[in-house]
Amino acid sequence: MRIDGVPTRTIRPAADGRTVEIIDQTRLPHALVWDRLTSLEEAAVAIQQMKVRGAPLIGAAAAYGVALALAADASDSRIEMAYGRLLATRPTAVNLRWALDEMRRALLPLPPGERAAAAWRRAGEICDEDVALNSAIGDHGLAILRALWEKRHAAGAERLNVLTHCNAGWLATVDWGTATAAVYKAHDSGMPIHVWVDETRPRNQGASLTARELGWHGVPHTVIVDNAGGHLMQRGQVDMCIVGTDRTTAAGDVANKIGTYLKALAARDNGIPFYVALPGPSIDWTGSDGLRDIPIEERSAAEVTHISGLAADGRPAKILLTPEGSGAANPAFDVTPARLVTGLITERGVCPASREGLLSLYPERRTRAAQ
Amino acid sequence: MRIDGVPTRTIRPAADGRTVEIIDQTRLPHALVWDRLTSLEEAAVAIQQMKVRGAPLIGAAAAYGVALALAADASDSRIEMAYGRLLATRPTAVNLRWALDEMRRALLPLPPGERAAAAWRRAGEICDEDVALNSAIGDHGLAILRALWEKRHAAGAERLNVLTHCNAGWLATVDWGTATAAVYKAHDSGMPIHVWVDETRPRNQGASLTARELGWHGVPHTVIVDNAGGHLMQRGQVDMCIVGTDRTTAAGDVANKIGTYLKALAARDNGIPFYVALPGPSIDWTGSDGLRDIPIEERSAAEVTHISGLAADGRPAKILLTPEGSGAANPAFDVTPARLVTGLITERGVCPASREGLLSLYPERRTRAAQ
Repeated sequence: MRIDGVPTRTIRPAADGRTVEIIDQTRLPHALVWDRLTSLEEAAVAIQQMKVRGAPLIGAAAAYGVALALAADASDSRIEMAYGRLLATRPTAVNLRWALDEMRRALLPLPPGERAAAAWRRAGEICDEDVALNSAIGDHGLAILRALWEKRHAAGAERLNVLTHCNAGWLATVDWGTATAAVYKAHDSGMPIHVWVDETRPRNQGASLTARELGWHGVPHTVIVDNAGGHLMQRGQVDMCIVGTDRTTAAGDVANKIGTYLKALAARDNGIPFYVALPGPSIDWTGSDGLRDIPIEERSAAEVTHISGLAADGRPAKILLTPEGSGAANPAFDVTPARLVTGLITERGVCPASREGLLSLYPERRTRAAQ
Repeated sequence: MRIDGVPTRTIRPAADGRTVEIIDQTRLPHALVWDRLTSLEEAAVAIQQMKVRGAPLIGAAAAYGVALALAADASDSRIEMAYGRLLATRPTAVNLRWALDEMRRALLPLPPGERAAAAWRRAGEICDEDVALNSAIGDHGLAILRALWEKRHAAGAERLNVLTHCNAGWLATVDWGTATAAVYKAHDSGMPIHVWVDETRPRNQGASLTARELGWHGVPHTVIVDNAGGHLMQRGQVDMCIVGTDRTTAAGDVANKIGTYLKALAARDNGIPFYVALPGPSIDWTGSDGLRDIPIEERSAAEVTHISGLAADGRPAKILLTPEGSGAANPAFDVTPARLVTGLITERGVCPASREGLLSLYPERRTRAAQ
């Protein structure tokens, strides 16, 4: 997407051809700082410290981490060492393991002398593949937005209002984002689209990341507290919800950032379509009942009791919100049952949130399930 | 309720018999500071600056403001001046006008020489009446909690989990609170009750006020982000919701702090009782359709883009959350339709959220409606 009009990916090879540049996302939304990764260790630390975050972007950064590791030594043991170091940074990230497996699979069969260049090339391809995947999701989502806008426009509406939760955006991927891809395409096509951005407590990824990237690209948007969405839906100010997902079960249940379920309930109560955008690889074909099978990470209470922002003096600050002696709980995700999801938007098309729906898009999984 | 074991009202005559003490609620939750009001002007400023907030407490503070005004001059014109000054502090607060009308009604017929003492007495009575009203709400709510706890306990539960939103607590009233009254009574009776406290963005009245008062009194509680309640309900960790209300229509629709509607939806989706505690005077007998008739206040965007807390150096700080160029919207209330409300808990008992339900408790309103 664009920053001040310039097309920009969240991760990119530097002009020197030997290092990698990333946006330090811990400095967002208040400062745009590019970090240069020059070694395996710097790549690992960037992932660990969440300078890069979002499953697809973590995978891309890990792939480049392997490439950086092989510059001086491209032995088998060096590949294994890089694999282990990078995997340990965020052990539960599915894309991280996938990208590392992919790099190892591509590199080990090659003669050591060819590995460094091949690693660099394969990391670039992994980035390009993510961009293509998200662009395809965006094309399918755009068709839904277009149909909706035609109806609303005919009924006299002046803009199409979409609500999103958390950041399933450009900043979580290499480009486009998942939930935001259709929004960017709609905006670029001239559709008067406006996004309600849930701030998404406790980590405020909506207020700090989604608002930031929409603003850079020029998409009209308004930040709201997570409490406000139901009211806006009751008053006819939301035409559609679109969110991302961390994991979708084969039955269409959707695990996503905590609070997603509440928005799906409000959408249902007000007859508003609720869509989930996801890349096929994030479907968990082994699970069926999301509420029973998906473990929910409980994160640090400090994310609830404290919050970060920019102080009046322009410096980053973290402040305490709760009284002494009051504890906090912090479940990080919730599960939106398939019955509340209007449709799943994937790189292969849109389907109902059900086993049959998903199998219609991924028929190769039907064969395996029957085996 | 108690602070460090000492029974404490939120407003009280000082030992000198001529001034009034209030908790400066703008300093909560991080500091307990008592302010002394010595004049009409100080009372007006305390209300205006939200050092006292919550409809019943504002009414009590205004009554004492009139008493303070009459110390040196108890003429008719002084009463009218005090009335005007205090009413202008929070023009939309219903209890404020009621308390001022009540003071004027009680004082104007008296000879000026008796008015100052009578004003002081009547202000004390208004406080006592609020305490009695909330205590009665608490008794009726306690019966519901007891019945629920008997069932849960028999099923092996070790505690009763109640979720509340915003602050309909002791700190919003003179004592007990509305939604919290039953919780305090249950706790004092030895029931192992635990409260999930929604932080209640944007002004965080849950995290800063409800958590603070429950902690002082010793009621076990856990602060959660507003996004978390639906997930906790799905996982069987909420036995009941109880909230307050700013206005209830004659049909049982409930206007309350933004986000209440989302919790009511989640409660309904998970078969969890959702109760609203309210004093009879907050029923709006003129309105019927809450969604159509209740205007929703849009407050300052700065409440969303900025947040206040305690900095690492122990000083109060306000920080910016959103990126430059991103606007925010801030609807302050939403309307929970009567169909989602299990029951209304009033000082006269519990009734269904419907016109017939309310009229069964307030039959005198039936006569008026028919006239």
